[in-house]
Amino acid sequence: MRIDLNSDLGEGFGPWRMGDDAAILDVVTSANVACGLHAGDPDIMVATAEAARVRGVALGAHPGFADLQGFGRRVVRMGERAIENLVAYQVGALQACAALAGHRVTYVKAHGALNNLQNAEAGVAAAVARGVRGVDPRLVLVVMPGLLSERGALEAGLAVAREVFADRAYADDGQLASRALPGAVIKDPDEAAARVAAMVDEGAVTTVSGKRLPVQIDTVCVHGDSPGAVTTARAVRRALEAAGHVLKPFAP
Amino acid sequence: MRIDLNSDLGEGFGPWRMGDDAAILDVVTSANVACGLHAGDPDIMVATAEAARVRGVALGAHPGFADLQGFGRRVVRMGERAIENLVAYQVGALQACAALAGHRVTYVKAHGALNNLQNAEAGVAAAVARGVRGVDPRLVLVVMPGLLSERGALEAGLAVAREVFADRAYADDGQLASRALPGAVIKDPDEAAARVAAMVDEGAVTTVSGKRLPVQIDTVCVHGDSPGAVTTARAVRRALEAAGHVLKPFAP
Amino acid sequence: MRIDLNSDLGEGFGPWRMGDDAAILDVVTSANVACGLHAGDPDIMVATAEAARVRGVALGAHPGFADLQGFGRRVVRMGERAIENLVAYQVGALQACAALAGHRVTYVKAHGALNNLQNAEAGVAAAVARGVRGVDPRLVLVVMPGLLSERGALEAGLAVAREVFADRAYADDGQLASRALPGAVIKDPDEAAARVAAMVDEGAVTTVSGKRLPVQIDTVCVHGDSPGAVTTARAVRRALEAAGHVLKPFAP
Amino acid sequence: MRIDLNSDLGEGFGPWRMGDDAAILDVVTSANVACGLHAGDPDIMVATAEAARVRGVALGAHPGFADLQGFGRRVVRMGERAIENLVAYQVGALQACAALAGHRVTYVKAHGALNNLQNAEAGVAAAVARGVRGVDPRLVLVVMPGLLSERGALEAGLAVAREVFADRAYADDGQLASRALPGAVIKDPDEAAARVAAMVDEGAVTTVSGKRLPVQIDTVCVHGDSPGAVTTARAVRRALEAAGHVLKPFAP
Repeated sequence: MRIDLNSDLGEGFGPWRMGDDAAILDVVTSANVACGLHAGDPDIMVATAEAARVRGVALGAHPGFADLQGFGRRVVRMGERAIENLVAYQVGALQACAALAGHRVTYVKAHGALNNLQNAEAGVAAAVARGVRGVDPRLVLVVMPGLLSERGALEAGLAVAREVFADRAYADDGQLASRALPGAVIKDPDEAAARVAAMVDEGAVTTVSGKRLPVQIDTVCVHGDSPGAVTTARAVRRALEAAGHVLKPFAP
Repeated sequence: MRIDLNSDLGEGFGPWRMGDDAAILDVVTSANVACGLHAGDPDIMVATAEAARVRGVALGAHPGFADLQGFGRRVVRMGERAIENLVAYQVGALQACAALAGHRVTYVKAHGALNNLQNAEAGVAAAVARGVRGVDPRLVLVVMPGLLSERGALEAGLAVAREVFADRAYADDGQLASRALPGAVIKDPDEAAARVAAMVDEGAVTTVSGKRLPVQIDTVCVHGDSPGAVTTARAVRRALEAAGHVLKPFAP
Repeated sequence: MRIDLNSDLGEGFGPWRMGDDAAILDVVTSANVACGLHAGDPDIMVATAEAARVRGVALGAHPGFADLQGFGRRVVRMGERAIENLVAYQVGALQACAALAGHRVTYVKAHGALNNLQNAEAGVAAAVARGVRGVDPRLVLVVMPGLLSERGALEAGLAVAREVFADRAYADDGQLASRALPGAVIKDPDEAAARVAAMVDEGAVTTVSGKRLPVQIDTVCVHGDSPGAVTTARAVRRALEAAGHVLKPFAP
Repeated sequence: MRIDLNSDLGEGFGPWRMGDDAAILDVVTSANVACGLHAGDPDIMVATAEAARVRGVALGAHPGFADLQGFGRRVVRMGERAIENLVAYQVGALQACAALAGHRVTYVKAHGALNNLQNAEAGVAAAVARGVRGVDPRLVLVVMPGLLSERGALEAGLAVAREVFADRAYADDGQLASRALPGAVIKDPDEAAARVAAMVDEGAVTTVSGKRLPVQIDTVCVHGDSPGAVTTARAVRRALEAAGHVLKPFAP
């Protein structure tokens, strides 16, 4: 039983860093790298690609809205063609930085507000998928199982990797529960780890109301932007390995 | 006798445009497209790549310093590894936008202050060449014949296209004469056209002092950022055709 | 009967220009100047302030969302405190550029998507008003009569200037009619001029359905971003003068 | 004997932070706040101004080159009028953020590459001074004693505060010794503290060759971007107080 562990990396800019990339790269099998418009700059992108290559970690582009100050977490209302172009631009920028570092981009995962928006609006999901496919139809798109992002990717003919989050509760519709709700973010490393292992074993997400949503799970997202987050990431990996899963990138 | 005509295009940003891209695309055989950091945004880049594809115009990346306000004409002092990364990032971004538009980047030409700097500092020329080669060693690099940019590209093992300018006078060392000098910019379309035809015929650049520098000429740069510039571009094309040259992209 | 004519100016950035600022400065009595985040840079801001001072044109800050590519026409979803800070930042930047140019900022008008948003959401209108008042409570805020922006400004204790648009049709609720509707933008200079003169004379806006909304009108907005726009601006001024109005800045 | 302690603060951007601003604000008497172009955003600027006001710490604008990625540490070659405008813009932006926070900007200190450049080129020093004076001639300009920045400020008629660095060695010409040289950065908190106390007592800077340069010292710069830096800052404050100095802002 193969499973992938992914994390957002290279999320600094210029003199600023976010999270302990080195620690998290030792835990995950896939690295989602920011592409310069909400975070990441050419130097950070090349360095992160090199660090991933050295560790045999797969490399994914992590495009977001062009909004450094908002870190890609604020929706910037724009047309669907513009979203397509925005995604392509960022994927290509990382592809080139990866080539310079002797590595290769094999997948894409939308960041922050763009990721949320594509699970709320089918047109945005389709635009993201077209942006990816236009660059290279062999790229795998990371999606949330059962949601619009999955449908958009499949309709575009892209291979998908279905993702669950280790530290987030789920609403009954399969969306992430709002961070404003109590219990929406799971902070205890052991709880997060046990929860993820159960989800992967059962092939299902359990929602805040106790509902069970059967889904295919190809990859688990962990975070690295706080010491606690790194601890959780390690606990998740250990729990998955203890349950007999082989950790391996989903992307070829 | 084959010759190429290139021009800087896609130099708008957001709501702003620069030059008459449609008119100039009807004249040139190669389009140097800004890559988003000194000019150009994903929408403009995709649209320009489409417009070039439709007309059979070759597509080149035109990377510059990351300085929108300065339009890439101000030197931003940075290390050589950073220049390498900066160039790769921009080339990749355009490659992806080109793919989305059904076109392909076949060459690279450094923009503005970065172009000047690489003809003044060997380390910068080498960094630009490494940035290009790291992305794809088959990319052709546009250089100024006899100058450091040419040497840097050749030492990196890249194919080069040697460029002359239709509307600029040359100093005795083969650099462009400073714009501050009288006669440094040739504004008369017929004079510029006659001059270029002579340079291409003779395989030599004539300098301000009358010196003759024998050089190989693969491509001629024309501008499109003013009505006069478009007129000059057309006159140059007519003069080259009248002299029996076949206008064709240098890049395969 | 005193009336003011305002226009958005200084909307270039770096090498790019938008509209014929010199022509429009000869027509208007108040200049709304972009503050560097959606358009405008320090050089353009100082130069525009100088050009306004020389002509006795009043100077207003025209803050927008921090989104150069989108020219402040895309909503960037952000909190109300952040909007307050964003507005203050931009007002202060222009105040300093004005001081350098020997001029003074006497009013503020929100730009593009920020202006629209404050007429749709009371919280945004209040945030804009707090941002202005926090910098200087004597600054006048330009608002749309009868809408949330007016209420927000008055509740904050600011003086207001109520604005109508020369070239836009109005919906029955006093908002601008969507540009997507036929007739929403009035292109004929004489029609726009006659319409504005009537609005000012009657102290009322006539909506697309023929409804008459009585409003106080302190200033009329004209545009300068196309040759036709400048012609309209001149026609509007002539019509107002012909009707016996004295053109004068609303701000002291 | 009154002395001031200043530090660069508010040097984050968007989601990123740099240094422990709260800890350093408890140590210093003057806060140099980044103004949005090399670091700092409106939210950070307002928050930093509030934090300074609460503690009775004086507020200074810390303008730099518009280069977020380079953090204002890379020279961006630009004209002197453009530098003047750039400085004014940033000072004004902070003034407004300060007003919103109930505080007031009383001085200016150039950041990074701009600060270095004005000590190397008289024209740049004059441009910085004109930019400050144009906004408000009562603003005090922080300068390096005996260098071009001091002369530029005095010739512009500005009041100056002469600054020494707690953790940097000096060359014989009064410039900071290059960081590349051994011993150029003093890392031991006690050494830095003793050194500063001696400089302030003697009214002189001792250079790497042992030369003694008599200078007036109005303020001491400490850093807060590492735990060690905060420790040094505290040690410097204690040493100055132990030597009988009263720590107080230089600016009225």
